[in-house]
Parts: sequence; C-alpha cells; structure tokens
Amino acid sequence: MSMETLARQVKEASIQLAGAGAELKNHALARIAEALLARKDEIIKANEADLRRSEQEKLAAPLLKRLKFDEAKLQDAIDGIHSLIGLENPVGKTMLATELDEGLELYRVTCPIGVIGVIFESRPDALVQISTICLKSGNSVLLKGGSEARETNRMLAEVIRQATLEAGLPANWLALLETREDVSAMLKMDCYIDLIIPRGSNEFVQYIMNNSKIPVMGHADGICHAYVDDEADVAMAVRLVTDSKTQYVSVCNALETLLVHERVAPEFLPRLKAELDKKQVELVGCPKTCSIIPIAAATEEDWKTEYLDYKLAIRLVAGLEDAVRHINTYGSGHTDSIITKNREKAAQFMEYVDSGNVMWNCSTRFSDGFRYGFGAEVGISTSKIHARGPVGLEGMIIYKYKVIGNGHIVEEYANRSRRFTHKKINKDFPL
Amino acid sequence: MSMETLARQVKEASIQLAGAGAELKNHALARIAEALLARKDEIIKANEADLRRSEQEKLAAPLLKRLKFDEAKLQDAIDGIHSLIGLENPVGKTMLATELDEGLELYRVTCPIGVIGVIFESRPDALVQISTICLKSGNSVLLKGGSEARETNRMLAEVIRQATLEAGLPANWLALLETREDVSAMLKMDCYIDLIIPRGSNEFVQYIMNNSKIPVMGHADGICHAYVDDEADVAMAVRLVTDSKTQYVSVCNALETLLVHERVAPEFLPRLKAELDKKQVELVGCPKTCSIIPIAAATEEDWKTEYLDYKLAIRLVAGLEDAVRHINTYGSGHTDSIITKNREKAAQFMEYVDSGNVMWNCSTRFSDGFRYGFGAEVGISTSKIHARGPVGLEGMIIYKYKVIGNGHIVEEYANRSRRFTHKKINKDFPL
Repeated sequence: MSMETLARQVKEASIQLAGAGAELKNHALARIAEALLARKDEIIKANEADLRRSEQEKLAAPLLKRLKFDEAKLQDAIDGIHSLIGLENPVGKTMLATELDEGLELYRVTCPIGVIGVIFESRPDALVQISTICLKSGNSVLLKGGSEARETNRMLAEVIRQATLEAGLPANWLALLETREDVSAMLKMDCYIDLIIPRGSNEFVQYIMNNSKIPVMGHADGICHAYVDDEADVAMAVRLVTDSKTQYVSVCNALETLLVHERVAPEFLPRLKAELDKKQVELVGCPKTCSIIPIAAATEEDWKTEYLDYKLAIRLVAGLEDAVRHINTYGSGHTDSIITKNREKAAQFMEYVDSGNVMWNCSTRFSDGFRYGFGAEVGISTSKIHARGPVGLEGMIIYKYKVIGNGHIVEEYANRSRRFTHKKINKDFPL
Repeated sequence: MSMETLARQVKEASIQLAGAGAELKNHALARIAEALLARKDEIIKANEADLRRSEQEKLAAPLLKRLKFDEAKLQDAIDGIHSLIGLENPVGKTMLATELDEGLELYRVTCPIGVIGVIFESRPDALVQISTICLKSGNSVLLKGGSEARETNRMLAEVIRQATLEAGLPANWLALLETREDVSAMLKMDCYIDLIIPRGSNEFVQYIMNNSKIPVMGHADGICHAYVDDEADVAMAVRLVTDSKTQYVSVCNALETLLVHERVAPEFLPRLKAELDKKQVELVGCPKTCSIIPIAAATEEDWKTEYLDYKLAIRLVAGLEDAVRHINTYGSGHTDSIITKNREKAAQFMEYVDSGNVMWNCSTRFSDGFRYGFGAEVGISTSKIHARGPVGLEGMIIYKYKVIGNGHIVEEYANRSRRFTHKKINKDFPL
C-alpha cells in the first residue's frame, strides 16, 4: 500500500475517532490493557527474538537494555494505561462561550489535533505509551519505532489494533511504519498529517525538522544550565549541581553548563570539584575557572555542546544579567536553574530566561511530565508555539469554534440594523 | 545592517519586552495613540504621497481604496488601541499550580511567544493593529508591509517606535522591513524568529509556508461550504446562503461551495437561483443540480477553487455523511455551515467537520475575530496546532513552567526515600 493511501486511511479514521466519547475510548484502553496481559507470552517471545538478533548484530549494552520488554516493563505499560483511563477526557471541553447576539452563540470546544506521526527510538514501551495517549486524546497515529525492536513493535501494534477494533474503534486509527523510506514518505504527507513528534538524537530531530512542512513538536537538544549566584547556599548548590549533572547523564534535562558568580567561585568550586571527582565527572572551564580549580580549558564549542555524559563545562559570570545572557545565547530553551537565597534575583531569572522550564533551588532533572504530575508524556518541547516543556495529554488537543444561530446573517450587523452583544455566558456547548 | 544583526537585536529586545508589566505596556499603547493623533498631518501627507505614486503606477481602484489612510481610518486605528488597552494582560497568568512535594511547587505561567514576523498587504492600518497587538502580548515584531504603502508604513513605524521608546520600551522591539530580499532573509532566521504570520493571497501564503522552517500561522485559502439539509427551513437557507456568498465576496469566510440534500433540492434550488440572480452570482453545478436549474456544469476543479468572486459551485448530496465527506476532502478547514432544523444532525456536522469554525443556521461570514468579540485579531488560522480560527491576543501567547524548590534533588525520588504528592494548589505564581 502506498504511503498516500495509508495516510488517507489514517486521516479518515481520525475523523471517526474524534467523535468517540470518553466511555468508548476508556473501554478501548481497558481492552488494550487486557489484551497485553492475555498475549504477554507472544509479546515477550517477539521481544526475545529482537534481543537475540540485536545481540548478534552487536547492539551496545545500554541499547539492549532499552530494547528489553519483559514482564515488569509490560506491567508498567499496563499500569500506565490504567492511569490514563483515570484522567479526564481532554476532548469536548467548552473553553469559552459568548452570546454574540440574541440566539447567536459562540463556543470554543476542545478537539483532537487529528493525525499524529510519531518516530521513536528503541524502547518498545514507547509504542504502548504513545499510542494510548493518542487514543485518549482522540488522535490517529502513524508510528515508526526503532528497527531493532521490529518484532516487538509489530506484535504490540497488532495487539492494540485488534483490541481497539473489537472495542468499536475504526481499524485504521493506528498504523505501524517499518522502514526509513516510510518515514521519508510520511514527512511529505502534510495534507494528511497534522503534527510530527520525533523522539531521538539531536541530529535525527534536526533532520526531521529540516525535511518536512508538517509542524514538529519536540526538542533537538537540551543544553541545560545552572547558575550559582553569589547569594547561594553553597552546600545546597553543590548538592543541586551534583544531582542535575550526575543523577542520569544521558537525558535531555541533565546539566551541561554551570555558570558561577565570580564572588562565590573561590568557596564553591573546590567543594563542587571534590564532590564531582567522586563521580568521575570531567570538568572543563573558562580561564577564570581554571585559575581557581585545576581543570582543562573549555572552548567556545563547549558552551554549545550537549555532552549527555559525565562531563561539565563551567564559566564564571559577573552576575545575574551575565548568566541570563549566556543562557539565552547558548541554551536550547529546555531547562535552566538558578541557585540563590535572593527571591528578587530568582524572580528575574525566571522572567528573563527564555526556556520552557525555569527552576529555583531545585534540580534541572525535575523537568519531566511524570515528575510534574501530568500522568502521561509524549515528550518535551522546546518549540515556542502550541506546547512547551513536558507535553502531556493537553498537548495533543486543539479546539474548534462552534456557532449556533437561528438564521442570523452578517448583512444586518454591517448595515447596523442589529448590534453584537458579546456577553460571556456560563454554559457548556449544548449539542 | 544585515538581517542577522537586525533579527538578533529584535530578539534581544523581546527578552526585555517579555518582562514588561501591564501598566508599562498600556502606558506605551496610550503614548502610541497620542502620537498618532499628534502627528496625523505628517502621516496623512505620507499616505498621500503613496496614493499619488500608486495612481501613477496604475494600481487598481480597490487596492487604492485599501491603501488610503485618512483621518477616519486613523481614528479607527486609535479606537482600536484604546480597546486593546482595555483588554486583560494576557502575560503572567498562572494556568496551573501543583505541589510536587512539600516545598517543591510547579507553576505554568503564560508568557509571550517572543519574536513574530508579520507580512501583510497594502492596508497601512494593519501595521498599527498588528504592532499594537504584539506589544500588548509582549512580543517583538518584524513587519513587512506592501511596497505601495512604503511612505505611510515608514511614518507609522517611526511614530510607534518613538512613542514606545519614550514610554520606556526597548528601541528594537519593532523593526520595519522594506524589500522582498528582506522577507527572504527573514524566513531563514529560525534561530531568532518564533512565528511567521503571513496575510495575503493563497499563493503568497503557500510560498511562505514552503520556504521557511519557522512555524507559520495563517490560512492559505478559505474554501467555505454550506450544507442545506433536507430538514432545512428553505426560506432561512436562501437567506443564509445569499449572505454567506454575497455579503462580501473577496474575503476568506465567504461561501464558495454549496452542498444540497437531494430531497430538498427541487424546492430550494429554484428559489435560491432567483435570489442569487438578482446579485448576478454565476452558478455552476454537478449534473444533478443542472437537471433542476439551468446552470453551467461544474468540473472537479470547481470543488477545489476559492473564487473570491460572485460565483458559486453547487453539488447535490445524498445526506449528511456525504456532505461531511465532501467538506473534509475539498475544504480548507476554515469555515463550514449546516442549515437544518434537526438538532442531532447539527451536532454530528459540528463534530465531524474538521474545520476551525463550524456553524449551525447562521452565515459563514460570522467567523471573524471582531464578530466573535475578541477585540483584536491577527488573522484566521487553518493550522491544527497552537491556534485555530480567528486568532486574538491569546494566540500570541505561550507559557513556561516555573519550579520553586528548596534544595530538592531527583535522586531522593529515584531511590524512593521521598514521594511526589502532586496536589493541585490554588495559588498564583508568587514571584
């Protein structure tokens, strides 16, 4: 089947799915959870085949770990579905209601975006998570997973399609793509696909952004900063920087560049170095930093680099303004934090740093949909429109305007024989 | 100055402007209104120069009319500014507040998008309207108007910049571009510009969408439909179709294709034709339509055409489902209406038609920011993300997450020595 045909079918299904009520969608989600449990042996067997093949193909150990989909991960996925069922239906909510004139009423009502294209890496749990978030928000989805997980993905997609078909959803609300050629073809389907969510490396996300007219939601990189102010609690600063940098180094909200106020540097830097040395973090710094602690020199390139590793770049700054300027120049608008006891400075930092997540006296690692309590996450966005920061169910939603009249024509308002009342009304869309 | 330098300056100003409070922004708006009045002679003189040159260059009469910026239009622009001052500040609103744990609080707070690039046609009033909407929403703006209005635009931009500089805003929050080369260069500034709003012809908007990585908000075309159901009040249907088609033919929310239920067609079509004949509307129709009223045959191309003229394509359909399918296939997701007495059918139509504006028993011409009571409009969007339908101040706004902690680290939640509470709190962001 051509991508054109497939995408059109998925689009057609999206129109049906958009009309599905909360009960039907939750029923379908429950059926998915049941089916995943009932067919767990088949799923795990498919995953074992992927693992065997990938081991033979010498896939790196961390990637093998991500690829593994065992009983524990399956249970996590099922738990995730049950928590999704518990969330409020994001579709059909009246956001605004206005009487335009007697008998003429305007409503803004939430609805699904339509068709989402998601491209994700090796973890097969992502397939379950993303497709169920799409279902709950009423969106159809085209999914492309990592080729190393192809047997697992095929099995999971089949189980989900079958379960939702039995529950009464249109068959084509979910489609699984398998090849890179499919992805290239999908990126051209701007007439059928409304949003692309790429999850993966910086280069991969950049490639997607540069090769499609379809809007893209996600983040290419996460060059996250912490600024240690001269009014910081030094012990707290050591603790927060250590957590931000080392709690999990290979993720987008890990710290990459540390900015330190010149006045606190002589006290703070040696204490920080002692702590980070224990974790074997490689440090590079600006000349002033290197004059305080014995570390290698950083280059201009370091300020633009997301290490995703046990490495940290350090720069001394003259104060808050300097720190904010550095972040807005080199950062990626992802997550940045200030450590200070001064409330006023914290307020300014959070106002002027142009990032999706700004933190005061806590770890950058908190910027995450689950930690934020969203219950479900499709990814983190560094875009400036639609959705920013961790994106939950709400990010999969848009709205339409619905106007109910009784034969009202514009000519009567143009010739001033009638006037708009524009009164807010406290009413849900009545149909 | 290079576009790179200019765009960077505007970006830098946007960081300052984002921090401006309601009072400062309203003060600056009031200063603009005063300055426009105080310098009205200079402005009108500049406009007269544009009019003279454009007349010599044989600009068409309707365009000359749009280009004219006289005392009445200036007063409208000033009135628009005063109504903008009266609107609530859309920036700094707390949309969500959650206690993540004791002493660890998450806030979602509205903020400006950043830097907006706007490209608009001949009307100089658009410059005042767009720049003041950007100011109120805290966004910097790069503006490119029609070259026929260049003297007027220069004068207006100068008056606005001067007035806002005196009010205390950063000088570079507004920049005026003058050449097509400037526009091409601007479309490449995805590192500084967050959103492009093009206003103009279908081809022009398509060109912008195809030539920039920056997100684009707007609409290329408006192929709007009305569906006259077999349960329609025929007199009302004649009245609504006539208004939708003829009240103002050259706008995006005017009717272009009429769908008629087969059962009502023999009664309805002759009455409609009699009415539209009075307004000299050219009709084309499907074979079944042509067997009822003597009009020319429509081609496949007609269903895809936005006439923006006294012309209407008519197609008979077997019922609601058929009508919805036609609209979702050929429409542009702009504005579509159903005319019926059947509430259930209206509900279905409004649910399944995938357009930004769906109407029941009223004219398509109502889909407009001013008629909707938004007080200000930057344009109408047929995009499926961020903002849809008429876009007012809210469409110029995004949010950031702000997290306040007291030394909280993620490691304690990872090793389960602490647990998230995720309690909704009823509090505005406190800084």
